[in-house]
Amino acid sequence: MAYSAPVRDQVFILGDVLNIDAHSNIQGFADASLETVEQVLDEAARFCEGVLAPLNTVGDKEGCHWAPDNTVTTPKGFKAAYAQMVETGWAALGADPAWGGQGLPRVVNLAVSEMLSGANMAFAMYPGLTHGAYAAIEAGGSPEQKALYLPKLATCQWGGTMNLTEPQCGTDLGLIRTKAVPAGDGTYKITGQKIWISAGEHDMAENIVHLVLARIEGAPAGVKGISLFIVPKFIPDADGNPGARNSLVCAGLEEKMGIHGNATCVMAYDEATGWLVGEENQGLKTMFVMMNEARLGVGLQGVAIAEAAYQAAVAFAKDRLQGRALTGATNPEGPADPIIVHPDVRRMLMDSKALLEGGRAFMLWTALQGDLQHGAPDEATRQKAADYMGLMTPVVKAYLTDKGFKVCSDAMQVHGGSGFTEHFPASQYLRDCRIALIYEGTNGVQALDLVGRKLAAKGGRGVMSFFADVDALVAELESDEAIKPFVEGLRTVKAKLQEATMWLMQNGMANPDNAGAASTDYLHLFGLTALAYMWAMMAKAAQAKVTAGDSDPFYATKLSTGLYFVARILPEADTHLAKLKTGAATLMALSADAF
Amino acid sequence: MAYSAPVRDQVFILGDVLNIDAHSNIQGFADASLETVEQVLDEAARFCEGVLAPLNTVGDKEGCHWAPDNTVTTPKGFKAAYAQMVETGWAALGADPAWGGQGLPRVVNLAVSEMLSGANMAFAMYPGLTHGAYAAIEAGGSPEQKALYLPKLATCQWGGTMNLTEPQCGTDLGLIRTKAVPAGDGTYKITGQKIWISAGEHDMAENIVHLVLARIEGAPAGVKGISLFIVPKFIPDADGNPGARNSLVCAGLEEKMGIHGNATCVMAYDEATGWLVGEENQGLKTMFVMMNEARLGVGLQGVAIAEAAYQAAVAFAKDRLQGRALTGATNPEGPADPIIVHPDVRRMLMDSKALLEGGRAFMLWTALQGDLQHGAPDEATRQKAADYMGLMTPVVKAYLTDKGFKVCSDAMQVHGGSGFTEHFPASQYLRDCRIALIYEGTNGVQALDLVGRKLAAKGGRGVMSFFADVDALVAELESDEAIKPFVEGLRTVKAKLQEATMWLMQNGMANPDNAGAASTDYLHLFGLTALAYMWAMMAKAAQAKVTAGDSDPFYATKLSTGLYFVARILPEADTHLAKLKTGAATLMALSADAF
Repeated sequence: MAYSAPVRDQVFILGDVLNIDAHSNIQGFADASLETVEQVLDEAARFCEGVLAPLNTVGDKEGCHWAPDNTVTTPKGFKAAYAQMVETGWAALGADPAWGGQGLPRVVNLAVSEMLSGANMAFAMYPGLTHGAYAAIEAGGSPEQKALYLPKLATCQWGGTMNLTEPQCGTDLGLIRTKAVPAGDGTYKITGQKIWISAGEHDMAENIVHLVLARIEGAPAGVKGISLFIVPKFIPDADGNPGARNSLVCAGLEEKMGIHGNATCVMAYDEATGWLVGEENQGLKTMFVMMNEARLGVGLQGVAIAEAAYQAAVAFAKDRLQGRALTGATNPEGPADPIIVHPDVRRMLMDSKALLEGGRAFMLWTALQGDLQHGAPDEATRQKAADYMGLMTPVVKAYLTDKGFKVCSDAMQVHGGSGFTEHFPASQYLRDCRIALIYEGTNGVQALDLVGRKLAAKGGRGVMSFFADVDALVAELESDEAIKPFVEGLRTVKAKLQEATMWLMQNGMANPDNAGAASTDYLHLFGLTALAYMWAMMAKAAQAKVTAGDSDPFYATKLSTGLYFVARILPEADTHLAKLKTGAATLMALSADAF
Repeated sequence: MAYSAPVRDQVFILGDVLNIDAHSNIQGFADASLETVEQVLDEAARFCEGVLAPLNTVGDKEGCHWAPDNTVTTPKGFKAAYAQMVETGWAALGADPAWGGQGLPRVVNLAVSEMLSGANMAFAMYPGLTHGAYAAIEAGGSPEQKALYLPKLATCQWGGTMNLTEPQCGTDLGLIRTKAVPAGDGTYKITGQKIWISAGEHDMAENIVHLVLARIEGAPAGVKGISLFIVPKFIPDADGNPGARNSLVCAGLEEKMGIHGNATCVMAYDEATGWLVGEENQGLKTMFVMMNEARLGVGLQGVAIAEAAYQAAVAFAKDRLQGRALTGATNPEGPADPIIVHPDVRRMLMDSKALLEGGRAFMLWTALQGDLQHGAPDEATRQKAADYMGLMTPVVKAYLTDKGFKVCSDAMQVHGGSGFTEHFPASQYLRDCRIALIYEGTNGVQALDLVGRKLAAKGGRGVMSFFADVDALVAELESDEAIKPFVEGLRTVKAKLQEATMWLMQNGMANPDNAGAASTDYLHLFGLTALAYMWAMMAKAAQAKVTAGDSDPFYATKLSTGLYFVARILPEADTHLAKLKTGAATLMALSADAF
């Protein structure tokens, strides 16, 4: 079963829903007409479907290999595909033209990123992490650092990594122990061990630029004493080419449930030479610029892998003959009907389709906020978009990966016994997808970030904007009989989210455990509301086409899928609201010993 | 992290809730006083914790190995553990004393089975499948077949398997092609290929007895032409010892996501000698006797693996120091607090604990119905228990494995990044557990069995009994202020289940797709109601102890856990009810091409 990039759906969202042609006053959009974007997406699809997708199973089965000389070999075919990616410029789409990128809008870049991850998540993480390192240096680096590193990172000629985690320290970065000692020449000697470093070592790039969090000797304890360093594998020489080998090695690879094609490294730094990024003890600030973008990228992985899993499930459900439709045979000449006739198989496929299309719109809509935040000509738009980015990032990350995992699990279920075997792709998708709920901050950490930080930021300005935008859309569409269920669904779920928000404001202050206890259900209620908002916008766009007499069945299918979302997924809101309003009492009742 | 068999909880359920001492008039119970049972459970726990659990990781990492001479080698240590199991009689606990078993009640046997699976699911499947073959021959075999095979299968001296699936035929057994040709001497020549045969070949037993579904030449098409055969690996000689090698081989092993320690075999039968079990063309009937028992055993696996995963998560959550409690440090001397202080970590652990304890009670309560069905002295009790067995089996199988998978996924999430690595047990539990949602009939097939067959069986007598029993318990307990939330929760969820049942009766007849579309949500609503019923019974028992002044903290913890279930899990009922009442319209709207 071949992966097919969801270009048609992306073009619908970019063109009919988000109307990117109307944003030509924003940086990067002038050169990104919908027509151009379609061509870019089509070409990207060819690369992803033709080059990356066929390597996905190879990557899973072969994995990465570490040798005692601390080298890491990637699976067969990865190196050539990487070289092709660098050469054709797919990795540089979103980077600044000043550094050799193509300066395409984030929203377009994210659509391409979805294809990369959908075709081969383990592979896509190499440019993904490199882009993270790029973003950190762009955000916090000196002009010299930018000039030296960004052109190489933009194209992925050099790889990049993010080194946060240590054995004793994951979410709680205040516990970092890696040391940085000033060498007297402006550089630092970095010593310590980092774990779970994705793409930490491999054979595909001529250099790897590690972004490392460490503590300068004498720095304050906790998160206030953490600085960010550039620690390249090969120290660039005067011409900016890879020079002397730095004293850092990959000491081993992690054995993992999935993403076997990506090298998850234990990195050992032994007085490695590093360069401070930004100011001393301000490392977390820069890292979080990057982390926020990375979190969107993880939400994207949830959708991307789930789309691939869903496609495999659809193909299987149309092909596999087993049993007869409850309402009479649909394939009377054959030995049995294809299992797609069975309502419970449909349920899983429709759940998936509705979540994926809604999730894709949500992810692209959020990416557009990133474009507006950085490139809108007026301050009010920039500010509102920045508020949205802050607010929606944890929702995109956690809701779309939780749902992505559900879709992958349902895709396996559609496969029946075949799904559990490694001859079909369902197992790999499920295994690969699972990490997305964990890394870049577990989904529980996202929920806490949402209720504990993002919701109240700037006096709750972000969530107020969201409620106002939803109300405005409801007011605009409520007289449209054709899409009434979408409007009613959105109005209803928004009221529940508002009720939950009020509950949080009243009870979270009194006892912060109430906020913590409510956080995941609140995030899911938020995700449902965001998807209902997307579905209302998509229904509006699709209905306009249908009304105008467009005969492309895509639009009628879109409306049907959305009606399913409203009828069969939105009811989850009630349960989340009821659960979160029970507060912390029953949840925190037991002492730790009682478990 | 060592697995610890949940003996304390099992004894509470068997003694305080199900009161097995009151059933001494039932076959097998006279010799199974609670005191005796406790001793049995304690000894079984020692075997499971000490012998099987240490082999669990070994089995996963090493897997089974197939050689070109068609032999299969099990992971290191499995053979010795199997021999020990046979010798000590753990496999024979539930078998009939007439065949060398110990004749313990099903309910006790199931408690031991939970430990076997919790300690090492892949291992436990070998005796599990053998027990299935035992049950099929016991149900349908001739006196000679019973005398020849049951003593060997009871102890697991010989292994047993169930051969249903073929490449073109999983759920839809009417598509079976394996042929049986009368040999003229009362035996048949069996030819065909079977796939996914768990324990189909291995090195632990001196013989393996395959129960094979095949079609006798000239038999009617479809399920009405399927017969069941005994096809032993070695044909027993006149003394009942393994004799000539039969012409069947394991042609290869399936590569799977989990349960690596169990050999999942492709079996090739080439005019192998087989003996008909029961009558010609009646094979499915006997197979389904066995299947129903097997389905309970799969529900059990959901609870068993999830318990093990939960234990690992609890240990990790108490050990891992990261961040501070929202309400102030609980470990101020340490670098951070254990993550069990975080409400969202608690949420996952409490969800797990409440589902596991409720699920365990439900599984044991259902097993007790099996004992009553077969051994109660009066016909009315036997009939009611048989109705319950039919009705509850799909709920136990599907609800407890769906929830088991959720618990395993949450256990991984509690571990954070560590959970995704294979250094911690979370990944294996998640991977192993996943098959339980698929085999012995996917959970969707269970849901269809429930709404399409079990609900309406005998004029709906089973579900009526259940509603009446729930009403009686509510009436009995409603004046008890101490456990009021349990009673209210049960009353409310039962009303929803009743409403859903009415909806199904009214709408499922009119359009069977409505029943299919509702089936999974209905099954989950049923599962929630069953667990609410269990929790009300457990609350009654625990409260009685507390009221009587029992100072064992177990009882207060039980009540707290149950209150969490009522407050934070029961609200899921609303969503299931709302979803199922939307019917098939939006679900079946799209044509297959539109996916």
